[in-house]
Parts: sequence; structure tokens; C-alpha cells
Amino acid sequence: MSTAAIVVVGNEILSAKVADENGPFLARELRALGVELRRIETVPDEVPLIVEAVRRCKAAARWVFTSGGVGPTHDDVTIAAVAQALGRRVVQDERILAALGAYFGDLKAAHRRLADVPEGGEVTWPEGRLFPVISCDGVYVLPGVPSLLRSGFHGVRERFRAAPIFSRAIYFSIGESSLAEHLDATVAAYPAVAIGSYPRFDDADHRVKVTFDGRVQVDVDAALAFLRARVPLDAVVREE
Amino acid sequence: MSTAAIVVVGNEILSAKVADENGPFLARELRALGVELRRIETVPDEVPLIVEAVRRCKAAARWVFTSGGVGPTHDDVTIAAVAQALGRRVVQDERILAALGAYFGDLKAAHRRLADVPEGGEVTWPEGRLFPVISCDGVYVLPGVPSLLRSGFHGVRERFRAAPIFSRAIYFSIGESSLAEHLDATVAAYPAVAIGSYPRFDDADHRVKVTFDGRVQVDVDAALAFLRARVPLDAVVREE
Repeated sequence: MSTAAIVVVGNEILSAKVADENGPFLARELRALGVELRRIETVPDEVPLIVEAVRRCKAAARWVFTSGGVGPTHDDVTIAAVAQALGRRVVQDERILAALGAYFGDLKAAHRRLADVPEGGEVTWPEGRLFPVISCDGVYVLPGVPSLLRSGFHGVRERFRAAPIFSRAIYFSIGESSLAEHLDATVAAYPAVAIGSYPRFDDADHRVKVTFDGRVQVDVDAALAFLRARVPLDAVVREE
Repeated sequence: MSTAAIVVVGNEILSAKVADENGPFLARELRALGVELRRIETVPDEVPLIVEAVRRCKAAARWVFTSGGVGPTHDDVTIAAVAQALGRRVVQDERILAALGAYFGDLKAAHRRLADVPEGGEVTWPEGRLFPVISCDGVYVLPGVPSLLRSGFHGVRERFRAAPIFSRAIYFSIGESSLAEHLDATVAAYPAVAIGSYPRFDDADHRVKVTFDGRVQVDVDAALAFLRARVPLDAVVREE
């Protein structure tokens, strides 16, 4: 199964200093790649909490992406936490050290921290990019600055591509309480299709949007048709 | 300690159908109330995963807020999961049933589900609001529709107000590697102040923003002054 989970290392998000862009970006990208995102955990910049989150995400999904906590300062603890979660030491990567030396010249201790990787990890240096992508045992350590995270992810994204997830939706003018029994019947008839029901309480043209998601397109289409056939025709606003 | 955690019950967020507004909204509100947000978990609409997330959040924080999964349809499983996480049965609340009866007249099974609460839970009905806020043992079950979540939270928010968190920031024109040793010294000198370092790689007027957060204003101010005094004056762009 192609599944993923995200750990956002984010004091700045928990304290509402900035809104997280990286979780939503990765959710959209993974969806487009056919990867099922199973959880997002946003945790403080504290090693024990990151270790637990990475372990939990690894147990829940094939791929784990971390966002943030990468760099030369005291609050950049993600590499150490990922290594601990994977039972690996932190070592210095020679290729990153060489690149840092070429860029900065004389390297301070803070510069050298940028070369830290979990022992046995993979360092991928996408052409033309300033920073490498560090990964180990399916855990990808991405920077928190959104432009850098996007750039790093784009350099490796094709390795996650899986069978597509098909999605359809139908919009109703009747409320959820009237739909509930028909939804129950549809869920029971199509166990391989994920069905979601989303009410609205504003002046949109519909009161409920029902979504159908699955790996098999004919099942997704059939589940939608099954529900539509059970509901009065004039309650259907539109489909997509 | 006044701490909180959020569980977002969100297939629609994990599948990137919608961007979560509720986590960022609650983060801003809690911050303004002086409540420290310790984690946000976004999980699928699946009872075992919600149960685990609620238990973990309860262990990590005084207040837990859930978002979504409340309503009359098959994917509305949050009440059942919260009750299970707290070791309580699900029962029907008489006051909600009476309100539903007054609104809908004859109640279907789907309507009755809206009256489900964890046994012993509290039902707060803020004046003029359509839906009550259901809570139990410090866990607040809020709806996923953003306007309803906001309305519900505003009806109870004053009960969470705590001592304010003070925040300041200083912007530098030098990079993180040059700041790192001075940040380390500041972190060591002011253990009660949370210090964050946020680099930029665009054409902003600064390269690094350093933030200082704490419950004691003089400590926050002193930590900022301590760092500023260690860095060349012309490296400081501004403070706030």
C-alpha cells in the first residue's frame, strides 16, 4: 500500500506565529501521486516528542515526511530525533561537508551541523538545488521554509508515484439526516470506496456534498450511481 | 499549566479536498487566551485512530479540542471515539433530544444521533446558537464546519483564559550560522524563555527572525536584550 504520514516540527505553528503551508502542500502532492496520507502530527521542537511522532508515523505508513527543524541553530533538532527514532547514530556526510566548505570556506561548528545525517541515510542532491534531501528508512527530512520544502520534495517526488486515487462527488439539496440511511446502504454495498459527507450551513447551492474515493474507477462510479438512484432526482444539484 | 491539544478528524483534509481552517483558528485563539498548544493531530475518520489520538492529547495537555466527525451520518464517529477514549458509554442527552424534536418534529434515527453524548458529559448551549458544545473530562467536541466550530468555541472560550504569553522578536541581516553560538548562549541563560530561529531565503529585509516567548515579560525582554548585545549592532534590522 502506498501510504504516507507527515510530522510537522513546528513551535511557530503551535504558537500561531505562522500558518502551516507545508502540510497542505504535501497533502495535495501526495494525493496527486496516488499516495494515501494517513496522518499529520504537528509537534513542538522537542526531541522526545518528535521521536515518538516519527515512530508512530512510520508504523502507520510507508513514507514519512518531516517538515522543519533543519538547520544550524539550537532549535534544529529533527535530524537527531529522526536518527533516534530509527535507532541510528548521527554522522557527518562527507559530500555535504565538501559542498559547505566550497560555499562557506572556513567551516564553523554551526556550519558543520548542516552535514549531520542519520548513519546509513541517503543524501539526494537534485540538480541545481542549494540543499540536499536527506532520507533514511523511508523517512524524508525536509526543511521548514516552504520554498525549500517544495524544491526538495519536487526533486524526489516521482519515487512516490503510485496507482491513482479516483474521486467523484455529488451535491444534494437535502440535509444529512435525510441522506443518512442511503449513505449507510452505499457504504455497506461498496466497502472499497471511501465515502464522505460534508454539510454546509451557508447560502451555497447545496446542503450536502458527498465524496467517493477509491483505487478502482468503476467502483467509485458505481457507488455514486447507487446513492443517486436511492435519492429523489430533484434532490441532486450536480455531480463532478 | 494551561495547555491544549487538537485532534482534527479529517479524511477531507488528509485527501487534500479542503484545507484545514480549524487548527489554525484554534491555535490563534488559544494563543490569545494564554493557552500553550502542545500538539495537533490530523487523523482519518476511523474510531481506533481517533481514540488513540484523544488519549495521547489528553495525556499531553489539560484541554483537548476535537474538530469534525460530528453529525448524523456514517462518517460522524467522533462522539463514539471520544467516549471510548474516556472509558464512558454513549448516551442520549434529553435536552438535545427535546430541541431536535422542537426543530424537526418527528425524529428519525439519524436525527437522534445528534443527541449522542459521552455519559456524564457537559452540554453547553450558548445563547442564540443552533448547536450545543459537548464536552467531557476536558475534551471539547467541536463540529468540522468552520463557521460552526468558531461559533461553538466563542461560546465557551473564556473558560480557558490563562496568564498571557508574552512574545517579542528581533530581525537580523546575518545568517543563522553566524547567530548560532549567540543563540546557544541565550538559550542557556534564559531557560524559561522559548527561543525560535527562523531563516529566510528570499528578498525580505532580514535573513533571520528570532522569537522569544514566555510567561514573564521581564525575562522575555531580558533574553532579547542579551542576544542583541552579543551581535554587532549593524546586524540588527529591527525589533518588535
